[in-house]
Amino acid sequence: MNQSHIQQLIKIAGQDRICTEQADLMCYAYDSSLDSQLHRYMPAAVFTPKNAADVSPVLKYCHEHTIAVTARGAGTGQCGGSVAPGGGLVIDLSALNRIVEIDTDNLQVIVETGVVHAELNQKLAALGFSFPPDPGSTKMATIGGMISYNASGMRAMKYGTTREYVLGLEVVMADGQVITTGGMNCRSLKTASGYELTKLFVGAEGTLGLITKARLKIMPLPEKKGIAVASFAKLGDAGKAVVEVFRHKIVPSAIEILDKSAIKAATLYKPSIKLPTDAAAVLFFEVDGPPPGVTYQAQKIAEVCKSIAIEVNWTDEPSQVKTLWEARSVVGAASGRVRPGATRVYIGEDICVPITNVGAALEGIQEIGEKYNTIIVTYGHVADGNFHSAPVIDLDSPEEIERVQQVGDEIHEMALRLNGTVTGEHGVGIVRAKYMEREHGPALAVMRTIKKALDPRNILNPGKMGL
Amino acid sequence: MNQSHIQQLIKIAGQDRICTEQADLMCYAYDSSLDSQLHRYMPAAVFTPKNAADVSPVLKYCHEHTIAVTARGAGTGQCGGSVAPGGGLVIDLSALNRIVEIDTDNLQVIVETGVVHAELNQKLAALGFSFPPDPGSTKMATIGGMISYNASGMRAMKYGTTREYVLGLEVVMADGQVITTGGMNCRSLKTASGYELTKLFVGAEGTLGLITKARLKIMPLPEKKGIAVASFAKLGDAGKAVVEVFRHKIVPSAIEILDKSAIKAATLYKPSIKLPTDAAAVLFFEVDGPPPGVTYQAQKIAEVCKSIAIEVNWTDEPSQVKTLWEARSVVGAASGRVRPGATRVYIGEDICVPITNVGAALEGIQEIGEKYNTIIVTYGHVADGNFHSAPVIDLDSPEEIERVQQVGDEIHEMALRLNGTVTGEHGVGIVRAKYMEREHGPALAVMRTIKKALDPRNILNPGKMGL
Repeated sequence: MNQSHIQQLIKIAGQDRICTEQADLMCYAYDSSLDSQLHRYMPAAVFTPKNAADVSPVLKYCHEHTIAVTARGAGTGQCGGSVAPGGGLVIDLSALNRIVEIDTDNLQVIVETGVVHAELNQKLAALGFSFPPDPGSTKMATIGGMISYNASGMRAMKYGTTREYVLGLEVVMADGQVITTGGMNCRSLKTASGYELTKLFVGAEGTLGLITKARLKIMPLPEKKGIAVASFAKLGDAGKAVVEVFRHKIVPSAIEILDKSAIKAATLYKPSIKLPTDAAAVLFFEVDGPPPGVTYQAQKIAEVCKSIAIEVNWTDEPSQVKTLWEARSVVGAASGRVRPGATRVYIGEDICVPITNVGAALEGIQEIGEKYNTIIVTYGHVADGNFHSAPVIDLDSPEEIERVQQVGDEIHEMALRLNGTVTGEHGVGIVRAKYMEREHGPALAVMRTIKKALDPRNILNPGKMGL
Repeated sequence: MNQSHIQQLIKIAGQDRICTEQADLMCYAYDSSLDSQLHRYMPAAVFTPKNAADVSPVLKYCHEHTIAVTARGAGTGQCGGSVAPGGGLVIDLSALNRIVEIDTDNLQVIVETGVVHAELNQKLAALGFSFPPDPGSTKMATIGGMISYNASGMRAMKYGTTREYVLGLEVVMADGQVITTGGMNCRSLKTASGYELTKLFVGAEGTLGLITKARLKIMPLPEKKGIAVASFAKLGDAGKAVVEVFRHKIVPSAIEILDKSAIKAATLYKPSIKLPTDAAAVLFFEVDGPPPGVTYQAQKIAEVCKSIAIEVNWTDEPSQVKTLWEARSVVGAASGRVRPGATRVYIGEDICVPITNVGAALEGIQEIGEKYNTIIVTYGHVADGNFHSAPVIDLDSPEEIERVQQVGDEIHEMALRLNGTVTGEHGVGIVRAKYMEREHGPALAVMRTIKKALDPRNILNPGKMGL
């Protein structure tokens, strides 16, 4: 991308929409991943469309001139997906933040993809509805980012991931052509017509097209929530409890786990939380639905856990639910506390394994931490075996940075050994590209064939996903 | 496909696996669609693999010699998807019927794709689990057919379609290469790694690859079910009741509708059912989950409907639930009864519209029936706007056959006008191919690009889906 390209893009998009100031570009050089923070991948320019229709002519030009294009939402991603390792143009979609239509009668909304998740859900909550996927970064993450990386959060076992709620998309293809997936004028909740392009673009990390609008399925908010909290002497017992709960025909809306390290972090952060510091793990079971069903389920979970756990508490009182849930909700922010002055970094942070390998995975992470003398706080969505491990290191120490990269590598390798995946909900981007061959085998060639067919000049988010 | 091809295929697959007897081939010349019953699309030969591994060498040969290959399960489809309009080889997958692994602890099963849905669910029910998608043809339909056409049934609003439960697939590609989607060795319930090939193959109607095995997510069976039945003076009132139920934060496991014609059919079939024959529509709300929640929800639905309906009944007593549900369950079989000696035919039978257009769609179907002097019985899954209309005609009358094709055409056109789709859960196949351009617009070109990239010789189920 040269100066003449930039001049042409300014002509097409407008002076105020194309940014080339180095200080501004720096903001686009990283996301939350350790990798991008170490490398600072500078783009040549940033384009900030004001309207969805502005994207197509820019993409058409980039296609004609083989200029790399990387879409970006809020930059909260943790895999280097929204940075441009080879330079080129970053398209910042955060100004496409209109909620186009809320149609609760038909259980759907249409939004531009720069809309922030929490803002959408705040508007929907006032009407008694919700867009169920619920990432930890809800207050910043955009719907477009959630779609492109198939975000989910803690309620995916019961409610599914983002993919399950995307009914249709407006996508600008590599050559600038605009398509609407899921039916041009369709507002149905279901279809079996044609290839499911929608679900293919979800999780494609901006490598197959640039998503400007989305039609999303919404659900009525549950009337009530309850919680049961159980602590266990052994990690294996926690795993057993999860299996037993499902066997008793209960599908909790979330099952969250804090291991020993996370219990310590939460306790240091907020001593009033009073978690059992001698436990190997604490499980938080959230249940939701009609009020009498919630009470019944919370109580039943407590009964099921009783013979396995050290201690169990349950409640369906809203204020107590909030108190009990607090320990789970502070753990992300608390993880840094286990080592004053150090920083939590995002690497190897999103593996997902079968439920029966949860104990082995948690033990494995701690062993890897010990081997590399690195503190790792681990918590996660145990209902679907998805963990977030948070290594806490001194970012000023090149030696610690070197070590933590081996930690990340070993965690990813372990996930594959345990019949898991290197990423449950954060995506591949730059940082997990090297595992794609081993995770997918011959299927990777099929992914590459699709990529080549839809983006023959490889301009869309190149250098990602091992494509 | 000539005699030498057949000889070679016999060499590759074995004499007993390749069938060319005309009488036998006739069984493969149609599915449940009216179109295929009128045309009888004869294949040149049928291959019945005994093991998943037998498929690859046959596909490799067909690819080298550009021989059309159409996969077939039980042949219960209603869109002509599993017949071979251009001849060639049909691959009958019904002998691949092994349940490879049931792993309730990890909430998943691995099956060959010829396994029949009801057989899988019978085995799972004994363990307290279920594969939730629930097509009407459960006793015959194979898992492979359900995957290839993204079947769903009446519980899709709450539980999702088949697509949501497919975690991974073994697919034989056009050239014979075998891939495993969703991770080569993965047993996780969730992943954000790589393109979601799994969900693309679901609903691709065997045009992108041939599916031999599937890894499926299962769920604990609900502990209890309840039902509320409400009858309405106007179709619009039934639509209003559905919207109100969601507004009251209730997500029924099914909402089924019988219109005037279906009430009449069910009553003729079984007078003891005692449906209100003067009603414009009857709604059946099914709720499931923890017992006290079920009672609460059934009761609440009855309250919500009270001011809108002519009459409402609800129950959480298992025997009464069964009795109330009976009217819904007989309607498919009963539809022929409205006209003695005539036959229900499958055409225009699967449109899906937004919930708020349900009333207009049902009225429209009746108007089309009147216009063409054809009796149409309509029932369906109103929670997601999906209807099954059953024209009942004299199959010996060429004039009636001519008329019913116009009926089908007008129903499909109306669905698109009402922001719907031509198929909610049965697929496109031959019979809905002509609507693809109008339903999908420029997105159809993207589908064609993917098809061409993965099946460059167009051997996989050619002539389908408007590709």
